[in-house]
Amino acid sequence: MTDQHSESTAPPRDALSPLQLKKMNAYWRAANYLSVGQIYLLDNPLLKKPLTLEHIKPRLLGHWGTTPGLNFIYVHLNRIIKLHDLNVINVTGPGHGGPGLVANTYLEGSYSELYPNILQNESGLKKLFTQFSFPGGIPSHVAPGTPGSINEGGELGYSLSHAYGAAFDNPDLLVACVVGDGEAETGAMATSWHSNKFLNPVRDGAVLPILHLNGYKIAGPTVLARISHEELEQLFRGYGYTPYFVEGDDPEKMHQLMAATLDIVIAEIQRIQDDARLNGFSVRPRWPMIILNSPKGWTGPKIVDGKPVEGTFRAHQVPVAELRNNPEHVAILEQWLKSYHAEELFDKNGRLLPELAELAPRGKRRMGANPHSNGGLLLRDLILPDFREYAIKVPKPGVVDAEATRIQGQFLRDVMKLNTVENNFRLFSPDETASNRWNAVFDVTDRCSTARIIAIDDHVANDGRVMEMLSEHQCEGWLEGYLLTGRHGFFSCYEAFIHIVDSMFNQHAKWLKMAHQIPWRRPIASLNYLLSSHVWRQDHNGFSHQDPGFIDHVVNKKSEVVRVYLPPDANTLLSVTDHCLRSRDYINVIIAGKQPEPQWLDMASAVKHCANGIGIWDWASNDEGIEPDVVMASCGDVPTLESLAAVKILREHFPDLKIRFINVVDLMALQPQIEHPHGLSDQDFDVLFTKDKPIIFAFHGYPTLIHRLTYRRTNHHQLHVRGYKENGTTTTPFDMVVLNDLDRFHLAIDVIDRVPSLGAKAAHAKQFLRGKLLDHKAYIEQYGEDMPEIQNWKWDSGKSGINL
Amino acid sequence: MTDQHSESTAPPRDALSPLQLKKMNAYWRAANYLSVGQIYLLDNPLLKKPLTLEHIKPRLLGHWGTTPGLNFIYVHLNRIIKLHDLNVINVTGPGHGGPGLVANTYLEGSYSELYPNILQNESGLKKLFTQFSFPGGIPSHVAPGTPGSINEGGELGYSLSHAYGAAFDNPDLLVACVVGDGEAETGAMATSWHSNKFLNPVRDGAVLPILHLNGYKIAGPTVLARISHEELEQLFRGYGYTPYFVEGDDPEKMHQLMAATLDIVIAEIQRIQDDARLNGFSVRPRWPMIILNSPKGWTGPKIVDGKPVEGTFRAHQVPVAELRNNPEHVAILEQWLKSYHAEELFDKNGRLLPELAELAPRGKRRMGANPHSNGGLLLRDLILPDFREYAIKVPKPGVVDAEATRIQGQFLRDVMKLNTVENNFRLFSPDETASNRWNAVFDVTDRCSTARIIAIDDHVANDGRVMEMLSEHQCEGWLEGYLLTGRHGFFSCYEAFIHIVDSMFNQHAKWLKMAHQIPWRRPIASLNYLLSSHVWRQDHNGFSHQDPGFIDHVVNKKSEVVRVYLPPDANTLLSVTDHCLRSRDYINVIIAGKQPEPQWLDMASAVKHCANGIGIWDWASNDEGIEPDVVMASCGDVPTLESLAAVKILREHFPDLKIRFINVVDLMALQPQIEHPHGLSDQDFDVLFTKDKPIIFAFHGYPTLIHRLTYRRTNHHQLHVRGYKENGTTTTPFDMVVLNDLDRFHLAIDVIDRVPSLGAKAAHAKQFLRGKLLDHKAYIEQYGEDMPEIQNWKWDSGKSGINL
Repeated sequence: MTDQHSESTAPPRDALSPLQLKKMNAYWRAANYLSVGQIYLLDNPLLKKPLTLEHIKPRLLGHWGTTPGLNFIYVHLNRIIKLHDLNVINVTGPGHGGPGLVANTYLEGSYSELYPNILQNESGLKKLFTQFSFPGGIPSHVAPGTPGSINEGGELGYSLSHAYGAAFDNPDLLVACVVGDGEAETGAMATSWHSNKFLNPVRDGAVLPILHLNGYKIAGPTVLARISHEELEQLFRGYGYTPYFVEGDDPEKMHQLMAATLDIVIAEIQRIQDDARLNGFSVRPRWPMIILNSPKGWTGPKIVDGKPVEGTFRAHQVPVAELRNNPEHVAILEQWLKSYHAEELFDKNGRLLPELAELAPRGKRRMGANPHSNGGLLLRDLILPDFREYAIKVPKPGVVDAEATRIQGQFLRDVMKLNTVENNFRLFSPDETASNRWNAVFDVTDRCSTARIIAIDDHVANDGRVMEMLSEHQCEGWLEGYLLTGRHGFFSCYEAFIHIVDSMFNQHAKWLKMAHQIPWRRPIASLNYLLSSHVWRQDHNGFSHQDPGFIDHVVNKKSEVVRVYLPPDANTLLSVTDHCLRSRDYINVIIAGKQPEPQWLDMASAVKHCANGIGIWDWASNDEGIEPDVVMASCGDVPTLESLAAVKILREHFPDLKIRFINVVDLMALQPQIEHPHGLSDQDFDVLFTKDKPIIFAFHGYPTLIHRLTYRRTNHHQLHVRGYKENGTTTTPFDMVVLNDLDRFHLAIDVIDRVPSLGAKAAHAKQFLRGKLLDHKAYIEQYGEDMPEIQNWKWDSGKSGINL
Repeated sequence: MTDQHSESTAPPRDALSPLQLKKMNAYWRAANYLSVGQIYLLDNPLLKKPLTLEHIKPRLLGHWGTTPGLNFIYVHLNRIIKLHDLNVINVTGPGHGGPGLVANTYLEGSYSELYPNILQNESGLKKLFTQFSFPGGIPSHVAPGTPGSINEGGELGYSLSHAYGAAFDNPDLLVACVVGDGEAETGAMATSWHSNKFLNPVRDGAVLPILHLNGYKIAGPTVLARISHEELEQLFRGYGYTPYFVEGDDPEKMHQLMAATLDIVIAEIQRIQDDARLNGFSVRPRWPMIILNSPKGWTGPKIVDGKPVEGTFRAHQVPVAELRNNPEHVAILEQWLKSYHAEELFDKNGRLLPELAELAPRGKRRMGANPHSNGGLLLRDLILPDFREYAIKVPKPGVVDAEATRIQGQFLRDVMKLNTVENNFRLFSPDETASNRWNAVFDVTDRCSTARIIAIDDHVANDGRVMEMLSEHQCEGWLEGYLLTGRHGFFSCYEAFIHIVDSMFNQHAKWLKMAHQIPWRRPIASLNYLLSSHVWRQDHNGFSHQDPGFIDHVVNKKSEVVRVYLPPDANTLLSVTDHCLRSRDYINVIIAGKQPEPQWLDMASAVKHCANGIGIWDWASNDEGIEPDVVMASCGDVPTLESLAAVKILREHFPDLKIRFINVVDLMALQPQIEHPHGLSDQDFDVLFTKDKPIIFAFHGYPTLIHRLTYRRTNHHQLHVRGYKENGTTTTPFDMVVLNDLDRFHLAIDVIDRVPSLGAKAAHAKQFLRGKLLDHKAYIEQYGEDMPEIQNWKWDSGKSGINL
């Protein structure tokens, strides 16, 4: 084996003394025993009585296959933590190994500290066993309730991104990350190995990936277990690591090999860090990693029903099942449990023997008690400048143009600057920071790369704080890891492509929901998305770049977790951004355009509007003191522009028409109060939207979302929503809204069609508006750009002459 | 350079004769000229007049950076196609290179054949240029309208999976796949290199990946361009390829190098295939690949406004912009265009000179005319057995239990068997074929792997037709590639994790919508999903595995493309499966459970029910000939079970209560007819659901989806929906429905609460039902499984004694 990796030193034979070896193996047996106990037992936890069916759970749920390997790694990490007084957290990719992590945190004592009802005695063991995968108990995966965890292992692929996110700006932290060979097949994982091109040994901690090859997924073999040793080594050298192989199935030999390998690896990491911290960053180091090749279901039953189990796919879940109908299976289970010799590990009361307990680190050095894995404990508020100071001056609505996200970028630049000492703020994007117009941040920091940088590169440095890789998975995973370890960040993404991480969003939302219910989990900073380059301004990129559906996905998650904001201009965007950066335990989705657009609210009005989340814009309404004839509502920057332009047209044609204009910043305000804490009361909703007047609602996204949020409201039957209806191509900005009937002309026609009192002028006005639509089509087909009257449109100085 | 890859032979100097070189370079210049012309020009296509602003598009949209490299590759692929009479399609990852592919298909003539208004003359050139990224014209990406394309390049990451999908079962096809170095950072791409472990040189075609390194994404450098040559080579050797480097910027040298490299690579592919086809498959070959390292924006302006452009991120989009305000930019553009010497390439009428035109292949060998890239041309109907023969016998509703997907698997087994000769059907899954109970297919085929297989593996073979990799991206991408080249398939996935490919679904749905509008694109087989292991039966895996929201995502797409089916039992699942396998150009989502569940419909009833999509189940209703007191509706297998159980409870307590029971198989039937072709008319909807009676709707997914589909229906205000409300954990199956108020007891209470006429017995019944819920909680907390009365519940033989 060792001849395959010439660079790595062959480990010495005796890294562990015979006594150390014996004790570590005993500790490992204890963890394995507790793992099997969790999967199988309701009672008789120390096997003081012969095992019978009544001690065994009726439903066997859990995954043994990966667990002994995870336990093996844990006991070895414990050794190096103690030996070097290391600060280590452990990210467990194979989340199905829940019982292993619970077993180990129980053995080290951190579990009982957080769950005082699970004591270090026989009754505690009984509870520990019973609760696992049991109604009202704990889930089968490594989960928020697992001490020391920052990664839910149900959906696979994100552990290594999480690990790197945790290591960023934590120079003293070592993040051990176990990657399963099933998980290694996922796309997210396959690209996340490249995270080492973004890790700076001067300012960041280290990540130690441990690829755990055990050969099978659920039923099929894994790719990485079935390529040659040579290819495997080349692959990880190609990814920029030095792989160290720990392979075999003999526990004693494996303990020696793992211990010796970890000694080498830790020394290598320390050498890299010492060098970089003494001499400064010069060149990306080749970080070490470990490839642990051990049998699936190691130490479990070798044969069941005549079929091999240990080392095969049959060990994936429960290696011995259907015990009610197979008495011999009960015997196999008993024999298996007894093979660990619990009587040599625990005293009669069920407490781990002191000579084994002392193998675990103490206090916060225990991986189940390391505060980095409960990031809220370490979280410090960001130092925020007064966002009002970045305000665009808006003397009157609609007279000034600005690029909202560019203004937001100026605010973020100073957030970055003010928190330089804490080093707890980073921006993440798939190469869209400049495209989304956050350029100002490059005044104070750079894109991060520890790969080769050349002179021509634009703001790229090894200590940059803008994390750009063309992988939404990496951005999301890094940011989640960064937040879960108690820091702050922002993810800027093209709106359409945030769907790439729909499922990662799901899992983070589920994590936050569960974490809320765990008293010892402290609140963390919210996950903030800026979605820009949005559906209405992707006219140049075309149909593939047009999808506003992420919000639909988001609102399916628990209302205690999700917030959605669509600020219509720069000042409202500033206010919302400030709010989101102060918030905790949410996922905030902000959608805002980057193109020059009219500005509507001065800062004082913007702050008030955002605080309410929804409100009447008096300056665009003419229904003072009376019920309007029609309500025009908007949500999103482009729909607001079009809706106001429609108001102007209508006022010109129908000066007596009483229009109320409502803008929605906080989408959740539309939901019933019982569904979302931001929801308006029905009474307030009725006051705003009236009980019976037509509502023409111009929405940024798919129209059905508005219906879905409002179907219980009094006046829902009068609600008419325009939004994206999946029509798009490469065209002009205005044509995009026309294609989806969201333009000013269609909106004005919508009003005319729904207000019966407009009389004879209605037909004339509609004819005029339809003519405008024809003019538009003819113009763009000839000139390839929008009509001057569209391009130069202004709210309050149009040639209409109407003084609004 | 060559010393880095010792295995690959150094190419000879003169692969091309001087004349050949000159002509190929001229052809490349022609393609580059046409590409620049498309990005910039409205008129004056042959520069017969001095270039002025009026010849230039007002809005400059397009991406030059990647284009010259794509053009370079195309001309070289043309050479080997002609030389060896090869059957080649070209998958273009960097989709922003749209102008390049349009230019090349125009030059080879395939473009004008498909778009007869774009002639091979000056007026055709003018139209070709004008239409690009112009309203009413063609999009800026390689798109469905681009001849020869099977990959939309707007969202990056899927080209190589598509390429492998195209190569499967196409032994004579060579799929060249250009991968951009930006795209290479995505997760999907990073894992798709491993597709070579699933390609069998005996039965499949070859894929030739061409990694195009040009150094930058939008603004930042790419990872793969900034690691050492050694690491890059190790990475691709680790992925199992032999990389051949083509690096430089001198066109003449690069032409010689590329030609020589392609000669080597083609010979190597032919050697691999000949060997495998003569001697049978023995060991996975190391396929060749090419790494083309050429400057971004090659041959474009070197300096603009004093800043370097060629070879930098500034060449990404439009290298010279804002021409209206910069007269010197017009001069740069003119100089750039003239640098290609169009007068040496085209005759005075604008036609490519014959001595250049002859470089392109002829007829179907042209990559723009290869029928594999318009798969509908090659599509043959699947031979389908009669699905009725797989029916579960259901003598009476609810007396037989079956695992629906297991039955479906038996049908699919025979579909697989019957189409063995055509070799045009494969199954795709992230290792969930067995878990989702399609085991029967392993009677006739195996999992596919060309990596190492060992004796203990379960149904794994190098010629298996079940494609399993733990990457939903790969499964989706392979299947899309397989379908787009005219074959059939099915994707089986855990319901929660199909969100991983939300964005790929988006892009495929958009592709299908656009393809519908292109006359020469022929219909292809539908993309069929089976989502199993669904939200209600993931009690053992817990919260992370529980998400029914994919449907919400799906229904945002165009109704002409999407279909959603929730068959309540095995026979309906069979009927739906047959229907989906016969359909064309749709995306069919089928959601069905894998656990043993009661069966409701015999085959004749199932066929009728599925044909209608929705219907009253008379045997569960007692409202014959009159208006019911309440409508109970269900959609999904578990909701149907709970809803029927509630009916039984209600009939026991309120024998006079008139209940109508409706089941929905085809979710789209609920939508208004104007929104979806499957939608019920309002009249039919009113007949089914009444105009004013309470409706208790038990739904598989998030309840708001039903509201969203039905908010315009007459009786919507009486519609009360139960479904998943994001409550979950590891618990029992019945507790999962209880946690979300979807269980029989809650549903019965819902009815009682909404039917005022139930009188004094209502309070008593509610007390009874609440007691049942308490019993349930107490029982599962004590025993860890559901009460016997739940586990053993039967529709028609319960102890209730009611004869239904």
